[in-house]
Amino acid sequence: MPIQDIDTPALIIDLDSFEHNLNLMSKSVASLGVAHRPHAKTHKSPVIARKQIAVGAVGQCCQKVSEAEILVAGGVDDVLVSNQVVGQQKLERLAGLARHAKIGVCVDNLENIGAINAASSKFGSQIDVLVEIDIGAGRCGVVPGAPAVKLAEAIESMSHLKFSGLQAYQGRAQHIRGFSERKVAIEKASEYVLKTIKLLGGAGIDCPRVTGGGTGTYQFEAGTGVWDEIQAGSYCFMDVDYGLNLTEDGNYFDTFQNSLFVLATVMSIPNKERAVLDAGHKASAIDSGLPKVMDLPDVEFVSASDEHGTLTLGRNAPKLSLGQKIRLIPGHCDPTVNLHDWYVGVRNNIVESIWPVAARGAAF
Amino acid sequence: MPIQDIDTPALIIDLDSFEHNLNLMSKSVASLGVAHRPHAKTHKSPVIARKQIAVGAVGQCCQKVSEAEILVAGGVDDVLVSNQVVGQQKLERLAGLARHAKIGVCVDNLENIGAINAASSKFGSQIDVLVEIDIGAGRCGVVPGAPAVKLAEAIESMSHLKFSGLQAYQGRAQHIRGFSERKVAIEKASEYVLKTIKLLGGAGIDCPRVTGGGTGTYQFEAGTGVWDEIQAGSYCFMDVDYGLNLTEDGNYFDTFQNSLFVLATVMSIPNKERAVLDAGHKASAIDSGLPKVMDLPDVEFVSASDEHGTLTLGRNAPKLSLGQKIRLIPGHCDPTVNLHDWYVGVRNNIVESIWPVAARGAAF
Repeated sequence: MPIQDIDTPALIIDLDSFEHNLNLMSKSVASLGVAHRPHAKTHKSPVIARKQIAVGAVGQCCQKVSEAEILVAGGVDDVLVSNQVVGQQKLERLAGLARHAKIGVCVDNLENIGAINAASSKFGSQIDVLVEIDIGAGRCGVVPGAPAVKLAEAIESMSHLKFSGLQAYQGRAQHIRGFSERKVAIEKASEYVLKTIKLLGGAGIDCPRVTGGGTGTYQFEAGTGVWDEIQAGSYCFMDVDYGLNLTEDGNYFDTFQNSLFVLATVMSIPNKERAVLDAGHKASAIDSGLPKVMDLPDVEFVSASDEHGTLTLGRNAPKLSLGQKIRLIPGHCDPTVNLHDWYVGVRNNIVESIWPVAARGAAF
Repeated sequence: MPIQDIDTPALIIDLDSFEHNLNLMSKSVASLGVAHRPHAKTHKSPVIARKQIAVGAVGQCCQKVSEAEILVAGGVDDVLVSNQVVGQQKLERLAGLARHAKIGVCVDNLENIGAINAASSKFGSQIDVLVEIDIGAGRCGVVPGAPAVKLAEAIESMSHLKFSGLQAYQGRAQHIRGFSERKVAIEKASEYVLKTIKLLGGAGIDCPRVTGGGTGTYQFEAGTGVWDEIQAGSYCFMDVDYGLNLTEDGNYFDTFQNSLFVLATVMSIPNKERAVLDAGHKASAIDSGLPKVMDLPDVEFVSASDEHGTLTLGRNAPKLSLGQKIRLIPGHCDPTVNLHDWYVGVRNNIVESIWPVAARGAAF
């Protein structure tokens, strides 16, 4: 089936670009000497997870127990929940899951460590526990240094938990546009990590792993020699927001190709300056900016409502026709994927695959 | 089950407030002398649609064929797609559906009218067609007046279509904060509608219905005497954005109660000034602003990422505990509902019902 016959709005993967990205990252992390544990919060798909693992990834990260359940059910046997899991219901699911796969989780709270151990004990499973330190993101995580050591000691004292290292993700650095500013942010973050590792060593605790890093910064984390494992996920799809980062030579970051698109239909052309697409908030997430129109010069996506995307047609815009299908690059890939139930994989404009977004809505 | 046992993030309906809103709107439209066709793009649920119809609504609106299919399958027998439907695949589904329920659709394009008729002919069904006029929203719709008459004439000339009136929705007016400014916007819009009705009359075409209006303005549309039917949908849930509108006496618009909440768990308390919830972009849509924390003074939801919501805790904030569950009022109800698979209905803090968000993701 040609791409033009796909009903819209639809989430499209350009398979050539997608595979290019997977292979490029595989080579990149190999040359940098770090492990790669891609973040499944981007793709939400065991199909894609297995493809990443096939080219060298050591497993997957995710943020929620429900995502981990879907990954394990889909054939992934090493999953790190790179996030805190709080509440008995969730912890019992996590502990049960740890009987079926290697499961890790992050902590930033003493009480939570006891609760995880109680759940693991109940299920007779073992959970790898990493201490999350806040290296500048200002979200979760303990202050680097002594507070992290205290948590590591608590983990070590538990019957069913294993201290497995540090979760150190500088989320705020991912979209710092300037190359050197982004690099400096990670170098600063690395000092916090090193300080913590040193204090852990002083307390007789080995730090088996430092994990973190995203598509915007993974080369810097790897370059510091402090991180063992990087978690970049968006590289497989890219989006408008990551495309605005700058590389060392001042160009836009296009090392990885845009492989993810929302296909939309022109459903109204009220006048020469305006056309309306059938794709709005329900088809493309706008938390990090509006989507961008592919291939059509002087056509700009200027506003979204729930079901509509409004385009302005400039002087040099081609004439659009009712029913014409247009590709949009999402502003932010992860939450855009979460709006769709399946990916339509396309190669040379022919539909090749349908992959469920199996962990769509898996927020619990 | 008490509300505190619901795993999070979860979409909660306070059933008392929800029923209050349904009954209040039922009385309001009756006293205003207009029909009510609530917009299902808010709730995406045949269960709720049937409850609205039970208290007097004449049917439902929706924006997409896939929503209409789900409404009809769920027992709603009168559905207006208050939007353009473009493309043979969608039109054939619409025409097929018209064999099972009374179906209406909007047009703003001559070519589209022929395509709708071709689909209806193929299925031997009849579709009610309304002409959408742009009364200030600047999205879809033809210019009021002569262009609308031309389309109405074309509809009348078709074998399987029936001209059924004007779709006239001033989307931009819904969230104008000031009462009188909002009223003026609708009064101005009403002139465009009247002008079009007059021209239709001059061409010998009766306009059987004018439909439009939302939760922010429906009283004004009804007050002009020009609209026969109002489409307000958000009134059943309300959200932060609608709550910022002002009433005639300058107070915040709280005629309808907040009945929709995202229940979230405190998953991290890094310090005295900050706590983190397990609900971010995947649990509450932020296109019209951030969610608002219920019941907790001096606690503010200040930022969202995909899976996290960050709270700042002011001086007068109560002490939060890990695992504590907190209700959020969504910034914008419609796209928030679209992130969830079910509603948990709660009365007096006890879970009473689970209703599927049956048209979640129905964007095609």
